Amino acid sequence: MSLNSQNSTETENQKNANVQWGGRFAGGPSEIMQAINASIGFDKVMWKQDIAGSLAHAAMLAHVGIISKDDEATIRKGLTEIGQEIAAGNFPFSEALEDIHMNIEARLSDRIGEAGKRLHTARSRNDQVATDFRLWVRDAIDGLDQQVAALMRSLARRAEEHAATPMPGFTHLQTAQPVTFGHHLMAYVEMLARDRGRLADTRKRLNECPLGSAALAGTSFPIDRKMTAELLHFDRPTANSLDSVSDRDFALEYLSALSIMAMHLSRMAEEIVIWCSSPFSFIRLSDAFTTGSSIMPQKRNPDAAELVRAKTGRITGSLVSLLTVMKGLPLAYAKDMQEDKEPVFEATDAAALSLAACDGMVRDMTANTAQMRALAGSGYSTATDIADWLVRVLKVPFRTAHHVTGRLVAKAEEKGVGLADLTLQEMQAEEPGITDDIYSVLSVDASIASRTSEGGTAPGNVSAQAQRWLKALGAEPTTAGQ
Amino acid sequence: MSLNSQNSTETENQKNANVQWGGRFAGGPSEIMQAINASIGFDKVMWKQDIAGSLAHAAMLAHVGIISKDDEATIRKGLTEIGQEIAAGNFPFSEALEDIHMNIEARLSDRIGEAGKRLHTARSRNDQVATDFRLWVRDAIDGLDQQVAALMRSLARRAEEHAATPMPGFTHLQTAQPVTFGHHLMAYVEMLARDRGRLADTRKRLNECPLGSAALAGTSFPIDRKMTAELLHFDRPTANSLDSVSDRDFALEYLSALSIMAMHLSRMAEEIVIWCSSPFSFIRLSDAFTTGSSIMPQKRNPDAAELVRAKTGRITGSLVSLLTVMKGLPLAYAKDMQEDKEPVFEATDAAALSLAACDGMVRDMTANTAQMRALAGSGYSTATDIADWLVRVLKVPFRTAHHVTGRLVAKAEEKGVGLADLTLQEMQAEEPGITDDIYSVLSVDASIASRTSEGGTAPGNVSAQAQRWLKALGAEPTTAGQ
Amino acid sequence: MSLNSQNSTETENQKNANVQWGGRFAGGPSEIMQAINASIGFDKVMWKQDIAGSLAHAAMLAHVGIISKDDEATIRKGLTEIGQEIAAGNFPFSEALEDIHMNIEARLSDRIGEAGKRLHTARSRNDQVATDFRLWVRDAIDGLDQQVAALMRSLARRAEEHAATPMPGFTHLQTAQPVTFGHHLMAYVEMLARDRGRLADTRKRLNECPLGSAALAGTSFPIDRKMTAELLHFDRPTANSLDSVSDRDFALEYLSALSIMAMHLSRMAEEIVIWCSSPFSFIRLSDAFTTGSSIMPQKRNPDAAELVRAKTGRITGSLVSLLTVMKGLPLAYAKDMQEDKEPVFEATDAAALSLAACDGMVRDMTANTAQMRALAGSGYSTATDIADWLVRVLKVPFRTAHHVTGRLVAKAEEKGVGLADLTLQEMQAEEPGITDDIYSVLSVDASIASRTSEGGTAPGNVSAQAQRWLKALGAEPTTAGQ
Amino acid sequence: MSLNSQNSTETENQKNANVQWGGRFAGGPSEIMQAINASIGFDKVMWKQDIAGSLAHAAMLAHVGIISKDDEATIRKGLTEIGQEIAAGNFPFSEALEDIHMNIEARLSDRIGEAGKRLHTARSRNDQVATDFRLWVRDAIDGLDQQVAALMRSLARRAEEHAATPMPGFTHLQTAQPVTFGHHLMAYVEMLARDRGRLADTRKRLNECPLGSAALAGTSFPIDRKMTAELLHFDRPTANSLDSVSDRDFALEYLSALSIMAMHLSRMAEEIVIWCSSPFSFIRLSDAFTTGSSIMPQKRNPDAAELVRAKTGRITGSLVSLLTVMKGLPLAYAKDMQEDKEPVFEATDAAALSLAACDGMVRDMTANTAQMRALAGSGYSTATDIADWLVRVLKVPFRTAHHVTGRLVAKAEEKGVGLADLTLQEMQAEEPGITDDIYSVLSVDASIASRTSEGGTAPGNVSAQAQRWLKALGAEPTTAGQ
Repeated sequence: MSLNSQNSTETENQKNANVQWGGRFAGGPSEIMQAINASIGFDKVMWKQDIAGSLAHAAMLAHVGIISKDDEATIRKGLTEIGQEIAAGNFPFSEALEDIHMNIEARLSDRIGEAGKRLHTARSRNDQVATDFRLWVRDAIDGLDQQVAALMRSLARRAEEHAATPMPGFTHLQTAQPVTFGHHLMAYVEMLARDRGRLADTRKRLNECPLGSAALAGTSFPIDRKMTAELLHFDRPTANSLDSVSDRDFALEYLSALSIMAMHLSRMAEEIVIWCSSPFSFIRLSDAFTTGSSIMPQKRNPDAAELVRAKTGRITGSLVSLLTVMKGLPLAYAKDMQEDKEPVFEATDAAALSLAACDGMVRDMTANTAQMRALAGSGYSTATDIADWLVRVLKVPFRTAHHVTGRLVAKAEEKGVGLADLTLQEMQAEEPGITDDIYSVLSVDASIASRTSEGGTAPGNVSAQAQRWLKALGAEPTTAGQ
Repeated sequence: MSLNSQNSTETENQKNANVQWGGRFAGGPSEIMQAINASIGFDKVMWKQDIAGSLAHAAMLAHVGIISKDDEATIRKGLTEIGQEIAAGNFPFSEALEDIHMNIEARLSDRIGEAGKRLHTARSRNDQVATDFRLWVRDAIDGLDQQVAALMRSLARRAEEHAATPMPGFTHLQTAQPVTFGHHLMAYVEMLARDRGRLADTRKRLNECPLGSAALAGTSFPIDRKMTAELLHFDRPTANSLDSVSDRDFALEYLSALSIMAMHLSRMAEEIVIWCSSPFSFIRLSDAFTTGSSIMPQKRNPDAAELVRAKTGRITGSLVSLLTVMKGLPLAYAKDMQEDKEPVFEATDAAALSLAACDGMVRDMTANTAQMRALAGSGYSTATDIADWLVRVLKVPFRTAHHVTGRLVAKAEEKGVGLADLTLQEMQAEEPGITDDIYSVLSVDASIASRTSEGGTAPGNVSAQAQRWLKALGAEPTTAGQ
Repeated sequence: MSLNSQNSTETENQKNANVQWGGRFAGGPSEIMQAINASIGFDKVMWKQDIAGSLAHAAMLAHVGIISKDDEATIRKGLTEIGQEIAAGNFPFSEALEDIHMNIEARLSDRIGEAGKRLHTARSRNDQVATDFRLWVRDAIDGLDQQVAALMRSLARRAEEHAATPMPGFTHLQTAQPVTFGHHLMAYVEMLARDRGRLADTRKRLNECPLGSAALAGTSFPIDRKMTAELLHFDRPTANSLDSVSDRDFALEYLSALSIMAMHLSRMAEEIVIWCSSPFSFIRLSDAFTTGSSIMPQKRNPDAAELVRAKTGRITGSLVSLLTVMKGLPLAYAKDMQEDKEPVFEATDAAALSLAACDGMVRDMTANTAQMRALAGSGYSTATDIADWLVRVLKVPFRTAHHVTGRLVAKAEEKGVGLADLTLQEMQAEEPGITDDIYSVLSVDASIASRTSEGGTAPGNVSAQAQRWLKALGAEPTTAGQ
Repeated sequence: MSLNSQNSTETENQKNANVQWGGRFAGGPSEIMQAINASIGFDKVMWKQDIAGSLAHAAMLAHVGIISKDDEATIRKGLTEIGQEIAAGNFPFSEALEDIHMNIEARLSDRIGEAGKRLHTARSRNDQVATDFRLWVRDAIDGLDQQVAALMRSLARRAEEHAATPMPGFTHLQTAQPVTFGHHLMAYVEMLARDRGRLADTRKRLNECPLGSAALAGTSFPIDRKMTAELLHFDRPTANSLDSVSDRDFALEYLSALSIMAMHLSRMAEEIVIWCSSPFSFIRLSDAFTTGSSIMPQKRNPDAAELVRAKTGRITGSLVSLLTVMKGLPLAYAKDMQEDKEPVFEATDAAALSLAACDGMVRDMTANTAQMRALAGSGYSTATDIADWLVRVLKVPFRTAHHVTGRLVAKAEEKGVGLADLTLQEMQAEEPGITDDIYSVLSVDASIASRTSEGGTAPGNVSAQAQRWLKALGAEPTTAGQ
């Protein structure tokens, strides 16, 4: 299935690929072996990181005198040209050369000869790939971090706009208490802020440079690991060479952070799907974020939301893949660890697409505020306000107030009316102390406005939170308010 | 990241792709929407199944008179040519047309006009994709089934060859009792036989045809679902149209079967890695299934085995992906279900490669029988034989025999000798009834030969089992014996 | 945390528990070792299976003359009494004796002396535990199979009752086409039927008896494995002793089947939650299957459905646990495999509870047929019927008909009316051939009634399917129909 | 299965448990409902946290005047006595009261009457359970953190002891280059240090107090959330009430950190199993950390290591469970989230046991230094040193040196000798520049001593690292050195 090799013109050096493994091998690897062994099909996305790593390594080798300044200049020129070649789509990738690292090194030797053969001094593919992969994950985190921030800004802007828009707050998908749409959107801002925090912590923890750990034991060459670390913007070299080439916990931590973020996005997506359903009709997505049906022309399907909801599967699956791969592996490097990359690449793609789609939908959606308000007031949603009134005004113990309210709800349900439609007499039949004042807490707006506790849904709270976040995220809050 | 569209020349019909969703859509889908929505990048591997499904559907439509015979002939010709175009690599795939189904249908209309627009009568993409995907999984099962059988044959052949070759049998990776290498290999034949059984059961259960379920409710056209089912070699049509377009349990069952098989292969791979290690040195793989090191030229790394061990991660991850996708989805079709394909395709690739690599390694490996025999006799591996002798000959209760044996082992360990090196006097000090006869059960060969219970490791048993399996698998047993 | 030992009175034999491991051990296992090693806390649920296995083993040992008839009678009496002791809650479980197998055997020796010490002849804990565990899983399958059948019956009964009750059929949670509530419920019957099939296949494949495989290599005693297999209602003995004590694929297959079933139940549960929401209001659950709120007395929370939806997490997690445990384990038995039981026990509990809760909810729920009918006709749900009419009556190619219908929907949406409210003139403006006859396909009942294709939603189909299933499940179909 | 209720004496208040849900419910929950709904069976481990939360809440209510000082004193006394009751094992837990929160509150009302009914003012079970669970996870992190530190200390002590003990360094489980045993052990110290970092980051991120978020919307009571946060040692109150009761990302982050740590421990455990195997014989575990066999008295099974390796399955499974539970849940609280606790409790138990077992084994193991040294020098392990010598001394480009070395290894292999056994003449046949000096790099000790690059395996490096860590961890480095 994936046994078919890539069409590519191989250069002289590449034809003798197994030469890279040392001169001892008589026979070449079989076709199956090549198919299962080659990673160039996916690891070529790390070409920029590989070239950056080699440039830093060469600079260091020259600095400490292991190679000459001339060799370094030649290597630098060669690698730069190879980078241009790859960027232009002209690089002759070879499956026989297994991976991006050997493809580039072989190409370098083809181009610059002897100097190219000196590049791999005092390093091994083990520390090279560990370095490249950390650089790639670091870049991915930086990209996703920007996307998360953008989505947070979009949410906060919509929240500011809807800081006072009532909607039913649900628990168990049952109407519970009125909240504001802005408050609901801001809940996701908080979740995403923690997701950013997890990505930032992952970045910080992985930002140590394995280069110079060599195969597993370090090297006898007088290398300067601090210099390469600095050139590649790592905080410091790693502390133990065996650990450096053996572990992939940074990739697992990254996939964990993505899995948790994807869980958050799947909840947002589920809500968008439910809100778009005809019985809810809380929001409407434009044509740009819906699709039609091949057989039912009236459909306006929230495909983007459904795909975001589904992508959490792929991301969780990637995490499980790598946890399974790493389980029970003896130190140091094992080839199993080559299976670390596809899960990371695919989960990154899925996360980037999901964030982009969520941002688009959040900006795009139109709120049906009339419908939201109507449902916010249904289902005895202000029953808690009655209970709280009984506690506050009549000093009834809460549990007792809860039971009184339960009886009032039962009475209203029986009559098929809302709580505000019960007469004072009917209310007093359950609790004689009730006065007219109780009707003041029964409206949706009163209920929402009363929730001024820290973090509560009162419009002023929501608006302040949205503005605080917009400022923190470097966005202008809307001055006009809403 | 995956936002970059494919380079492809789009035809007239394809340019107006959103036309497929009905004439209502004013704006086109945004770039993000297209990137997250399009599946053509991966579902094009189902082109054969899609064409086969459409051919059957058209034949049925003509048979019952929904379209004319002429239209059917035109459609048949068009689809056949499109199949040739795809096979030749000349088909202009378009991301704007989302998936393989719409790519082919749009191309058909481009080629044959009006008749092409009649093909989608009485079906929907929902039943179409469910049909194509079942066909694809069925084909994949058939391919893997052949591969599993081949691996079983290779194992049985090597087992026949080594039916009497002693090796240490381990529990807890501690030497327990001598077994034969053939017996050990035959254990995997039994596991793989169950894996085949699971694949066969999956195939049987999925072999019902969803075509004709339409979007979700069936259709008012007088279609003949038995006919399309038969043409596509399904056992029967599915019984409920909603179920037909909503469920993907067949894909989950398939991924479960692959996950369990991958677990088996990971154990074989782990053993190969351990057996190839220098302290064990039980087997040697040739250059064809090992690789060298970029820095350590003496290495002979069992990369193929390590990759097989690792692939179980990807396969388990695929299962988790799809279980996560399907969790809690309301009926009927939801776009989430588009995320069913990549896990299935990738797991299939991983499984096919793993089977091929295992088969290659099993055929390729050379057993170091001297080393195996030497270790088979170490570590007091025949202690159980003493205990059994005490029970059998002296009628000592087993638990008591067990304790006596324990003391004998302790004595030998203290002296730094093997059990056979204890004197009769030393033995009798622990159990006066012991006679010279006990030494007859202390050799590796005697121990192995005595295990004649059904399924036991005695060479005759192993040889018979291997031959029975080879016959069942349609392979010639080696006549010369071993 | 789990280091605290169980309070239990230990008998003489139990105090010297490490004696079971042979007389060689000088020091006892440390407290940590005991805490991590002991499985009696959870494996005692297998006591019935362990006693059954020992009874069969003893009967066979006596039959072939390895132990005397008298010893067997003594053992039988002892084990029977121990069974009564455990059933009565009087058995002195000991953590020091590690597991249920050693607890029972030690107790037996305490009670009957010498004969008890002969029971373990020609077997090992490895084959003993493999046998017990298979017996337990087999019993669990039989129990769950009954529960699945009961749920199928309940669904089919409700489906028969609602064979003609219209409800909106959704795709993407968007109204697509009208279906009947009965048709929707029958979709789950089909899914559950496949779940039963998977359980049945698992049962069949696991129904081979490992007893007599001994530690890993078989035994030199002249045992009769067919006899023990038969006594324990296994189809046959297992074929390879190493495989018998090394594999747990039967448990993985079982957990896979449960995971897929749990996925199905999670979808039913999600639908119940959505259907119970105030905007949908399709069904109502009674007090028996809802809970209230500690603060919002009006709530009627579908907790049972939510917990069913959530239990899929635990079941999937159990599958992943055991796949992870088994990954890469060398043969034969390893202590890792002790971690096979808790996932299986917990997943079984979760599945049994979920099935019971679903059955209860399906029987309990009241359908709000008026609301279902009203929504079934909204959202241009019969647009497909127009397209089909154009194809059938006017012979318009389907794709063209699809576009015409799209324009009609757009027109109706613009006017804010239903399709049936468009005038003939307005219709003819889009397609001049349209006649009055088209209005006959626009009603919900007409749409449903027309879907008579095999597996389609037409009430006659649904009713027939429900009755067919009720008969197959041994239940009386309701004669009066509805 | 789990339908059997707990034996417990129910108090008056508990008998009317559904009273807690408001007075509206006529019928009680069915037996099934109770079985699936009740969480008291597992959430009672949170009793300390629940009482602490209630004490803080009551103190705050009194401080702001919502309840009287007298009521608070009465509540405090009642809760304190309940805590004593639970600690003493005398608390009458009731399944009918569902969970620990309602069990304690009902008991409080039973004991102190009216004041008890005021406790639940301005809070809900939703924020109460979120608070208790965060407190529990925080406590668990603090406990595990101590255990990780202890294991790191033990590893560093053994590493200091073996800073100069040679062992073969493996890649692909093939001998690659000599390293020191201390260096290998220190690799795990680095991994565990990152695990601690992840736990610390999780703790920091979760350390915000949800109490006062009430059901989902906040409250109209003038509560002081900063005060409760402070009393419970949280850094601050949470910022959004909906988010506070809806999310469990802190539990997922915790389970991710445990999963990654378990992966590390599974690798250590795998190595211990392999090192204990007879062919390796690198280490020996004492009786305290091994078990014997019921049939093979000579066995010394590393069960503790195997169980640690296996526990990673349970921990990964727990993570997958909760990710699955949370996927696609709409806000705010849903009962699904009750399934968050068992995975967390079980994973914590598994992690605590694994850490304790690893610590015990690391302290307990005896290194077979002669065997390690012997194998460190085998397998041409100093081939890299030759290549490096060629580069350093002869200025041969690395890739060329690599090929020369490969030919030297092939020559030695052919002769069946070590590299040091090749004559100078034989060496010069491959590379004429080679001098006698090359033999100086061929010994194990020379190889190890030369790896002085930062993080390399040279004994001085290892010793310094071990001492640095011991100091950082508050342990005395061994003064005598090694």
